Amino acid sequence: MSELASEPLTQREPWYDQADTGLAGAGRVTVLSRADVRRCLAAVDPVAVVRQTLADHDRGESLLPAEAYLRWENSQGAYTRSIGMPGAVGPHHGMKIINASVSNPAAGLERAGGLGLCFDAETARVTTILEAGLLSAVRTAAVSAVGVAATGYSGAGSLAVVGCGAQGRMHAALLTRELPGLRTVSLYDHDPAVARRLADLLARDDLVVTVHDTARDAVTAGEIAVFTTTADKGYVTPAWARPGALLVNVSLGDLADETFLDAAALYVDDLDLVADNPRRPLGRLMGDGLVTRPGDDTAKPIDATLGGLLTGRYSSRGVARPHVVLNPFGMGVLDVALYGAVAAHARHEGLGSTVDLG
Amino acid sequence: MSELASEPLTQREPWYDQADTGLAGAGRVTVLSRADVRRCLAAVDPVAVVRQTLADHDRGESLLPAEAYLRWENSQGAYTRSIGMPGAVGPHHGMKIINASVSNPAAGLERAGGLGLCFDAETARVTTILEAGLLSAVRTAAVSAVGVAATGYSGAGSLAVVGCGAQGRMHAALLTRELPGLRTVSLYDHDPAVARRLADLLARDDLVVTVHDTARDAVTAGEIAVFTTTADKGYVTPAWARPGALLVNVSLGDLADETFLDAAALYVDDLDLVADNPRRPLGRLMGDGLVTRPGDDTAKPIDATLGGLLTGRYSSRGVARPHVVLNPFGMGVLDVALYGAVAAHARHEGLGSTVDLG
Repeated sequence: MSELASEPLTQREPWYDQADTGLAGAGRVTVLSRADVRRCLAAVDPVAVVRQTLADHDRGESLLPAEAYLRWENSQGAYTRSIGMPGAVGPHHGMKIINASVSNPAAGLERAGGLGLCFDAETARVTTILEAGLLSAVRTAAVSAVGVAATGYSGAGSLAVVGCGAQGRMHAALLTRELPGLRTVSLYDHDPAVARRLADLLARDDLVVTVHDTARDAVTAGEIAVFTTTADKGYVTPAWARPGALLVNVSLGDLADETFLDAAALYVDDLDLVADNPRRPLGRLMGDGLVTRPGDDTAKPIDATLGGLLTGRYSSRGVARPHVVLNPFGMGVLDVALYGAVAAHARHEGLGSTVDLG
Repeated sequence: MSELASEPLTQREPWYDQADTGLAGAGRVTVLSRADVRRCLAAVDPVAVVRQTLADHDRGESLLPAEAYLRWENSQGAYTRSIGMPGAVGPHHGMKIINASVSNPAAGLERAGGLGLCFDAETARVTTILEAGLLSAVRTAAVSAVGVAATGYSGAGSLAVVGCGAQGRMHAALLTRELPGLRTVSLYDHDPAVARRLADLLARDDLVVTVHDTARDAVTAGEIAVFTTTADKGYVTPAWARPGALLVNVSLGDLADETFLDAAALYVDDLDLVADNPRRPLGRLMGDGLVTRPGDDTAKPIDATLGGLLTGRYSSRGVARPHVVLNPFGMGVLDVALYGAVAAHARHEGLGSTVDLG
């Protein structure tokens, strides 16, 4: 900077300062930490928000554009990625940014984390930044819970959870609360200690919780089997499923192709999201023409979307043999709806901190 | 909560709290306001960062996935949108979120604003949140400045700026600094007061600055003409251009189709970004088969990318008649590189504030 100091300041002001228009910039933004989000959740029922938003989405009252997807390998060669998912429903506009590296848990970090953003509907300004990891896991489990009810499995007496990390814990904690007739929970994790920790968490007088030695033993015990692993290849064949079971494929892989193709009923959250993503088995099967959209009987059609079941546009087939598959993709607009509900409560209660972005 | 209060607390802890894994969440994030970013820019040369990153991109050393794009109309019926642009180059990974509503300036707000995010390359965690509006405008002007030099127009004596808002001011402030032979600046804005404010800003003993009554008068006066408007339809025909002029199409519209098709040379920042976006004229012309990629002479080929000119993979045609067109799309990876440089300096100087997302 020394060579500039001898010049008149008015001439030497940096060019980017000269360009200032005098209009207001980004301004003040509310920041909600995970603790703030948690406090808001005491007043916001995420299952109700998810149920409502799935129905709104089915009625065409949402915007759900394609996501932005950046992937790379970190220095350990681990799959690492960032996904940006904008969406809008009702008065809520926003974006979910959810990043992950598969090497995070070994380093003591949650696999996935990121930010939720709320936008002002008039100006598009960012109004709120939220910790997104908790709500992402809450939303994912809430979709499965809504799906279990909408597909006709609320009466299940047995639940299997394969993969007992953050998502598995969230699913188990919610479903053991939501299923009044539940009597047994069967757990499997490739790390038995992780499964045992979840078993301890679920301990309840009226519930028999078993940690199994194999994934198949766990799956076979469940009228509902939830897959919350990091598997990227299918290994669960139809023979694993208890007759009439609901297989909830939350993670990427787990279910073998024939388990989709042999299902008595096939449910998803959003047809376009599933069809547009060949990285996941069901999208690949649609791309190959082996699975089709509802009503298209040229191959194996998807039976319904969850939103369509909720609005009555489709009917559930109920408990059906050989098995039923629910395969949510993950709709960012559900997170955006949760962000809106949480941010409204935070505003009402004066929760969170404020940063002035200028 | 009253119905829950009578139950044992251990049984009634919310389900989403039971699901906690004990792994570390989002953690602490540095927040850089516009003032912080401005202070960092005193030590970071954005034109040099943009030049380097364009060359890195040409050498395939970057990741630039498709953007996520959400658009809606606000209550005034104004076009309102959010764009999420992830990208990576060298050690820098991040995302630009840039939102805008065309009704913002009338409400006293900058049209566009948003957040820049830096990600940890190992964990994908968000490490820094920056005010993105200033760097977005700086980046856009820097691309034009690099483009003026790379296409052979550094010797220009006259500059026209059509559209004198934030982008026009930024371009004028930078280009009047970067072009040593500049003697005249011609300005036009549909609001004459806005053009006059920019003229006042540019006042310098060795520069004749004129506010014109029509866009055509301004354009015709410039060896370089920069378009930084909100026009969404082409109106600048080849007859407007001074012979041999460089037309820099920063905004969406402005240039009529024949002005692209008749150009002696056509330059862009990224071929895929331009081709994939039919909302902008050049993408539409490519979609219609009227403009093709470099070396494809079945129609009017694009001559080169800016990065290709910088690495020497392509050669510039220099000043050429009837006119030359530079049409950058806007590469989020350039912003990400700037975020990385700014965040590194902020870390070094201890600038910014910290929020703990938990």
